[in-house]
Amino acid sequence: MMQVKFQLDEKDMPRQWYNLAADLPNPPLPPLGPDGKPVRPEMLEPVFPKSLIEQEVSTKRWIDIPEEVLQMLALWRPSPLYRALRLEKALGTPARIYYKNEGVSPAGSHKPNTAIPQAWYNKQAGMTSLCTETGAGQWGSALAFACALVGLQCKVFMVRISFNQKPYRRLMMETWGATCVASPSNTTNAGRQVLAKDPECPGSLGIAISEAVEAAVSDPSGKTRYSLGSVLNHVMLHQTVIGQEAKKQLAMAGEKKVDVIIGCAGGGSNFAGLSFPFVADKINGAKIDIIPVEPASCPSLTRGPFAYDHGDVAGMTPLLAMYSLGHTFMPAPIHAGGLRYHGMSPLVSQAVVEGLMAPRSYPQLKCYEAAVLWARTEGFIPAPETSHAIAAAIDEAKKAKEEGKEKVILFNWSGHGLMDLVGYQKYFAGQLEDHELSDAELAEGIAVMKNYPKPAVRKTGKW
Amino acid sequence: MMQVKFQLDEKDMPRQWYNLAADLPNPPLPPLGPDGKPVRPEMLEPVFPKSLIEQEVSTKRWIDIPEEVLQMLALWRPSPLYRALRLEKALGTPARIYYKNEGVSPAGSHKPNTAIPQAWYNKQAGMTSLCTETGAGQWGSALAFACALVGLQCKVFMVRISFNQKPYRRLMMETWGATCVASPSNTTNAGRQVLAKDPECPGSLGIAISEAVEAAVSDPSGKTRYSLGSVLNHVMLHQTVIGQEAKKQLAMAGEKKVDVIIGCAGGGSNFAGLSFPFVADKINGAKIDIIPVEPASCPSLTRGPFAYDHGDVAGMTPLLAMYSLGHTFMPAPIHAGGLRYHGMSPLVSQAVVEGLMAPRSYPQLKCYEAAVLWARTEGFIPAPETSHAIAAAIDEAKKAKEEGKEKVILFNWSGHGLMDLVGYQKYFAGQLEDHELSDAELAEGIAVMKNYPKPAVRKTGKW
Repeated sequence: MMQVKFQLDEKDMPRQWYNLAADLPNPPLPPLGPDGKPVRPEMLEPVFPKSLIEQEVSTKRWIDIPEEVLQMLALWRPSPLYRALRLEKALGTPARIYYKNEGVSPAGSHKPNTAIPQAWYNKQAGMTSLCTETGAGQWGSALAFACALVGLQCKVFMVRISFNQKPYRRLMMETWGATCVASPSNTTNAGRQVLAKDPECPGSLGIAISEAVEAAVSDPSGKTRYSLGSVLNHVMLHQTVIGQEAKKQLAMAGEKKVDVIIGCAGGGSNFAGLSFPFVADKINGAKIDIIPVEPASCPSLTRGPFAYDHGDVAGMTPLLAMYSLGHTFMPAPIHAGGLRYHGMSPLVSQAVVEGLMAPRSYPQLKCYEAAVLWARTEGFIPAPETSHAIAAAIDEAKKAKEEGKEKVILFNWSGHGLMDLVGYQKYFAGQLEDHELSDAELAEGIAVMKNYPKPAVRKTGKW
Repeated sequence: MMQVKFQLDEKDMPRQWYNLAADLPNPPLPPLGPDGKPVRPEMLEPVFPKSLIEQEVSTKRWIDIPEEVLQMLALWRPSPLYRALRLEKALGTPARIYYKNEGVSPAGSHKPNTAIPQAWYNKQAGMTSLCTETGAGQWGSALAFACALVGLQCKVFMVRISFNQKPYRRLMMETWGATCVASPSNTTNAGRQVLAKDPECPGSLGIAISEAVEAAVSDPSGKTRYSLGSVLNHVMLHQTVIGQEAKKQLAMAGEKKVDVIIGCAGGGSNFAGLSFPFVADKINGAKIDIIPVEPASCPSLTRGPFAYDHGDVAGMTPLLAMYSLGHTFMPAPIHAGGLRYHGMSPLVSQAVVEGLMAPRSYPQLKCYEAAVLWARTEGFIPAPETSHAIAAAIDEAKKAKEEGKEKVILFNWSGHGLMDLVGYQKYFAGQLEDHELSDAELAEGIAVMKNYPKPAVRKTGKW
């Protein structure tokens, strides 16, 4: 019998998070405030607890994971590393395809890896409540789960179109005791302003972020904070347990090197979680292709400029140095809701600027085709976001076949698709379309950034 | 850090299934045909392949698991054994509560443990297609998954009320390439007869079984067989990997004995899978309370007679010696659809007759209360069926607290509830009711069996 999964003991869980900022030749540029000057950490305190702000700005390479956080992560971590033997056979590839199964968490994706520590640090800081936004619902349900375990109230602003289309995600949040409202809502100024202009507005992640930040900072008790599920440095940090575990598990599988690392990328967190520990190896000389995969309809890394832009529609967040399609950009309604974000993690963005990563974009029909092949060979039904990574892994495996090379391919299976089956239904019914961003849409989107400061493009030219 | 889960390596997977029929002081009575005589194995060949019929009637203690079946089971097995540390703390109990997490399979429950071997044996026998029925959809999706892996067509008759209420389950089946039709359907005589009397009939498991058996035996190619997800001896057999793994994992956790074994019981398969290897210990002198938990609205073990009855509504199956509420009994529409079955596995039934098990029944509101406490402490959202086992584990833990005893409680967490969130929604909205079976309903149900042969009640009187 061929071994199909490689499982670490709990005692072998990573005890520290890995901070790529310590190793990037040029760490990410600082966020800027409304005055165009770098934001000082204390300015963020109405929004985040100090401990998380410290992580956000830290350049320490290793940051200890608190014991109580580890104990909660152990509910599903270390996640198994799988070898996709049955897919390899179906493709007839000489490549060995491995995937890290992050769908085993209670919320069904990698998101709880950061939801748990964020909730815990907020609880430690004396907070009683967290506000956040969610698109397709992966993040909102992860934070609801984490708040249930830690003992915090949780309010989630869910993009209205998903709120209506994905009632099961809302029910997950409610089962864990959270409150979930459709965004734009009439409970915030940001929401009311949008509704005044367009009462039927389907919402967007950018709007929901504005609402959640406002709800957090305007709570008179002062004991509510905001929580973000991607983009920020401390979120990438918390996800690096994925890549650290994967390294140990590849060694268990007898692999001495890995050739290709793949993850889907919306805000960047699952991709960063798997890839950053390997980026460190690449900086130190290892030869690895590191591939973030984004949707062709929302291609920040492959078509957006590297620029300073807000993280939200209302412009409440500081300006971040990142690849962006413009913070008012409204992505096409693809089913991979978690990839419908205009920007990209500043850490991932800086690594791309450096040439450490080779982003690519895929249309959604190609991804659904890959997802169905996956489900019928490997069994687990993937989330639409995850299908982008699968499609790239298949392409790389086919390339290895053409080249006759025994490549080792590792990708992040970021979550299951059991809450997203309506997308499959539409795919089978021929009701899904591809949405490639037009040049005109791109130009319109990025115009919003034209008067913002321009970030320095710093690259060593080594990769 | 306290260890929360105990994980076996793939190489430690059980290589044989355990057959309780070899150890029961009185093995189950044979099924009877229309003439009242025991059914000969060859009479079942239009319905099942020979290999499975051999397992059905076998009294061999150990039966080898084929290597190719093991390779597919390894996609999610061995399943983790968890210690419910956070629930223990919430209850303040001295008991140590362990649970076997069968929700990690691609279909989300224990059902693929038998779907995979059933599909494989049918493929080996030259079949091209399988037909089955499903209630809430756990079994239908498990068989769809197994057929995708093995390479068989799959047709599922899904009880109409669930077909309409649980579209996600149907979408799972379709994603794996299966066909799913609402039952009663107009594609079979059995279905047409029911529809002629009641065009709005919401369907039942018994009707769907009749349709699936008819569809299988009437396929002119002769290459279609029927597959059942519970009740039969070979199904119980395939599930015994659960209990065998659990024994090794309890040893890893340092436990020298177990005091209480719990599982929810509809047709009996998840309960049997966990408990049968421990029943063997009990037969050999170990002191263990073994508790099947059924819904108060469908209490075959706790209120039904031990009798000969059909497994389906149309009376197409042989008569089985089992606890039954009558094969025309229509259970109340509780959300635990997998527990809405009039009968019970003959092997489980005979063990209950012997006094080896102590069945109990619970109303559904108590079970939802337990499920919500579970989700908010242990994180994973349970299926409504599973919540019956959780409620019993909580009761046993409270009893241990009253008695001041450090009991070891083990239960089967048979599946996750991510496809069943509408039940939670109704629970939170106060829209769910308890349905205790009235004496009149019971009398009406069991009347259908009054002219059938009566099984001998054989008990050693030892337990």
